[in-house]
Amino acid sequence: MGKGKAKRGIPSKEDDFNSWYPFIVEAAELVDKRYPIKGMDVWRPYGWRTMKLIDALTHREMERTGHEEVNFPLLIPESLLDKENALVARLKRAREEGVDPDDLRDEEEEGGFKKEVYWVKHAGENELDIPMFLRPTSETAMYTMFPLWIRSHKDLPLKLYQMVNTFRYETKQTRSFIRVREIHFFEAHTAHADEDSASRQIAQDLEIVDNLMHDLCLPIIKAKRPEWDTFPGAWYTIAIDAIMPNGRTLQVASCHHYRDQWAKAFDLTYENLEAQQQHCHQTTYGMSERLLGAVVGMHGDDNGLIMPPAIAPHQVVICPMIRKNSDVDTVAKAEEVAAILRNAGLRVKVDSRDIHAGQKYFDWEIKGVPLRLDIGPRDIENDSAFAAKRTGGKEPLPLANIVDECNRVLDEIAVELRARAARHTENVVLQLSSLEDVEDGKIYEMAFDGTDSHAETIERTTGLSFLGDATDPYSEERPCFMSGKPTTRRVLLAKTY
Amino acid sequence: MGKGKAKRGIPSKEDDFNSWYPFIVEAAELVDKRYPIKGMDVWRPYGWRTMKLIDALTHREMERTGHEEVNFPLLIPESLLDKENALVARLKRAREEGVDPDDLRDEEEEGGFKKEVYWVKHAGENELDIPMFLRPTSETAMYTMFPLWIRSHKDLPLKLYQMVNTFRYETKQTRSFIRVREIHFFEAHTAHADEDSASRQIAQDLEIVDNLMHDLCLPIIKAKRPEWDTFPGAWYTIAIDAIMPNGRTLQVASCHHYRDQWAKAFDLTYENLEAQQQHCHQTTYGMSERLLGAVVGMHGDDNGLIMPPAIAPHQVVICPMIRKNSDVDTVAKAEEVAAILRNAGLRVKVDSRDIHAGQKYFDWEIKGVPLRLDIGPRDIENDSAFAAKRTGGKEPLPLANIVDECNRVLDEIAVELRARAARHTENVVLQLSSLEDVEDGKIYEMAFDGTDSHAETIERTTGLSFLGDATDPYSEERPCFMSGKPTTRRVLLAKTY
Repeated sequence: MGKGKAKRGIPSKEDDFNSWYPFIVEAAELVDKRYPIKGMDVWRPYGWRTMKLIDALTHREMERTGHEEVNFPLLIPESLLDKENALVARLKRAREEGVDPDDLRDEEEEGGFKKEVYWVKHAGENELDIPMFLRPTSETAMYTMFPLWIRSHKDLPLKLYQMVNTFRYETKQTRSFIRVREIHFFEAHTAHADEDSASRQIAQDLEIVDNLMHDLCLPIIKAKRPEWDTFPGAWYTIAIDAIMPNGRTLQVASCHHYRDQWAKAFDLTYENLEAQQQHCHQTTYGMSERLLGAVVGMHGDDNGLIMPPAIAPHQVVICPMIRKNSDVDTVAKAEEVAAILRNAGLRVKVDSRDIHAGQKYFDWEIKGVPLRLDIGPRDIENDSAFAAKRTGGKEPLPLANIVDECNRVLDEIAVELRARAARHTENVVLQLSSLEDVEDGKIYEMAFDGTDSHAETIERTTGLSFLGDATDPYSEERPCFMSGKPTTRRVLLAKTY
Repeated sequence: MGKGKAKRGIPSKEDDFNSWYPFIVEAAELVDKRYPIKGMDVWRPYGWRTMKLIDALTHREMERTGHEEVNFPLLIPESLLDKENALVARLKRAREEGVDPDDLRDEEEEGGFKKEVYWVKHAGENELDIPMFLRPTSETAMYTMFPLWIRSHKDLPLKLYQMVNTFRYETKQTRSFIRVREIHFFEAHTAHADEDSASRQIAQDLEIVDNLMHDLCLPIIKAKRPEWDTFPGAWYTIAIDAIMPNGRTLQVASCHHYRDQWAKAFDLTYENLEAQQQHCHQTTYGMSERLLGAVVGMHGDDNGLIMPPAIAPHQVVICPMIRKNSDVDTVAKAEEVAAILRNAGLRVKVDSRDIHAGQKYFDWEIKGVPLRLDIGPRDIENDSAFAAKRTGGKEPLPLANIVDECNRVLDEIAVELRARAARHTENVVLQLSSLEDVEDGKIYEMAFDGTDSHAETIERTTGLSFLGDATDPYSEERPCFMSGKPTTRRVLLAKTY
């Protein structure tokens, strides 16, 4: 055993993250992986409550920014995928040949998304006339309907989103939340009058990301993906990568600016102020249950999960000390305190099981409850509760002011998680000094204004992938790592999930 | 044109319900049926918000009764369906032969559910080793996992539920919310130590139904289905049928008592207090988007929907009178009133579009907003708003007390909808007097204690279906309609959706 300590069978996170992660998602009862289809986990009540609390934050942001929620069918006819594949093939060819995509015709692309989807070709005892597939994402389904809803500039911008199950036929090794075959997915799709308005939408998306990451206390990198890693249907892609404890990055969200490329393929026009038909500009913004994967991976420790207070199903667990032959009713007191806290909007659990306190602590630590309050006869005498923070530290809290005290301590816990995330980022993100001197488990940044062939050399030599241009570049010009040309472009490299 | 009146193209509900219904679900922007797969509608923002408000009522009831939410995979391996089909075939044969099902062996049933599901047999370019299907409901998926979660009597009762998309390969004509191929579905599954505990669960389910129907203001019939119409895997089924305006009934919910039949097929046992392994008893309780179909159908009129206040996305719409050349800012006043109402927990929309008031009224009537407040310069002078109830009636409301006033009026609207539902039930449910004297659009009740062959005669002669034994029987014995035997059994007959 190494530096980390193992507790009652929990693998050490520091020594063996790849064993710790799958162990903890099941031990904390987030999911059950024993369902008979690989890569399709069962969400257990605790995991699903956590995910829905993350979703609630997203709903809040969508409402704040005037997005409306819709729900599209899961099944998509094959013909729409053909349309998408043809568009993507044309854009790819235009990019490769350096010509305007409008000058090229659609062409059938071999494979494309067809390789990644589940097919429904049979229903009952019949073979279907038109094969359908399970949505991997909903561009094609939505953009089939948008032309029916958008007539004039008055209908713009159209800002819709949905939270649905999507499917990818993963052939790589699956991992709960991180790489699964049925994905709990969020997707926002917007249509705008022009490129500028669509660009402003991307800026708003990134602001939403910041708000969410603040609540989830996650350290992230926002980077404009290099052209070769841009989703082929997009003009550009900004991806949000969470920095995992092992120094690998996990893409948890992405925003695509489509310009009018999809609108041209799906005939999406509107009548502008001059009574002319014009193509819309479009964006998408996607996220998934990977957010929970990042929370689990980033905040947990060798005792289990640590839930950021904003999404903890139980923000406070109250453990009354069960003492036989005592005439002080600690359970009644615990329920009384719980009622006061719930009334103030906190999520509170009372654990009045008649078992050893150590077992209770173990159970709630593994589930990552941020704040535990112990209430024994002595505490009641002192009109206080004894608080234990999941991030470490204990103190008595006066019951007279328990709502404010709990809110203060929960804030402290969130602040501590963010501080840990910041320290982790500092430790993990290094300046690239030489192509040969690349450490395992580190992310590298560099000033870069080189060519694709430079980039290829870097990726091949280091074994790292280009995350792209950080959205916050250097404030002053620096020499490009390869060409020496002065540039403010700050480019990041990492091993990715 | 008949008794009903048509308004700006809305078909008359009374004269032509079959045209009114599909027209109104699209005109009110609940769904869009133009998606390229028949029977799979797109939920538009207004429809989805309404459905989620119905879901919120269900979540509330689930929380109150100690059910926990889970989320199971959509895909189910074929082998589990085989297991279910074999169970169902055995139970059916036992019932036909009048023997104990435990004395029979499982046998392959030809077809069964296989005729009703969508199949996934391909992924990417591969044919799958094990075909999978899209869940039509989740018994088989869940009962595969239950044995992993239930060990001892301490794990019981297990009360789980989920809200998910399910799929039926419908070959009949589809109808929004009522008969669709992708279904927004609610299903609760419980496991208990014994038959009694499971029976108490069914009683609780029916109490939940009553609470929901109170909020939705829906007139319903709760009836224990006759044995030949019981779901074959169930010991008995209690179905909840909404009474539609045309006198047909729409099954909107059902509860199944499974006894230990499924537990035996899925090897679901627990250790009882005497340290013996015993099979669990199980129940399910299902509902779907049909609830919304019933709300649309039952409450709407020739001006559009009427939303019960409990699920109205906008409970109150405020229309400031836009007067040019007036120095009174009606829009500011409307926003001020809206803020007060929202602060009190009401869902409020301000319509400050600069269009003719009649157009606004039309828009909000078709969407069924229960309460409209008009605010003009004169109203502001009088410190009041002019209220129009969607169920009819107008009155000025003092702004000084606007929260209480709106709540009072919304309550009145719900009371009125319930009164209409009660009147409708009274008009539609008649005592069966003769098999020959059966009126179209009516539901019949009778005292019945006859045989299956009696029932068959009745169904064939009247063209109606047995809904089964009402859960509220006659308080005194009456002679059976067929045999004359005295009975309190109150049996209902109807044309069903």
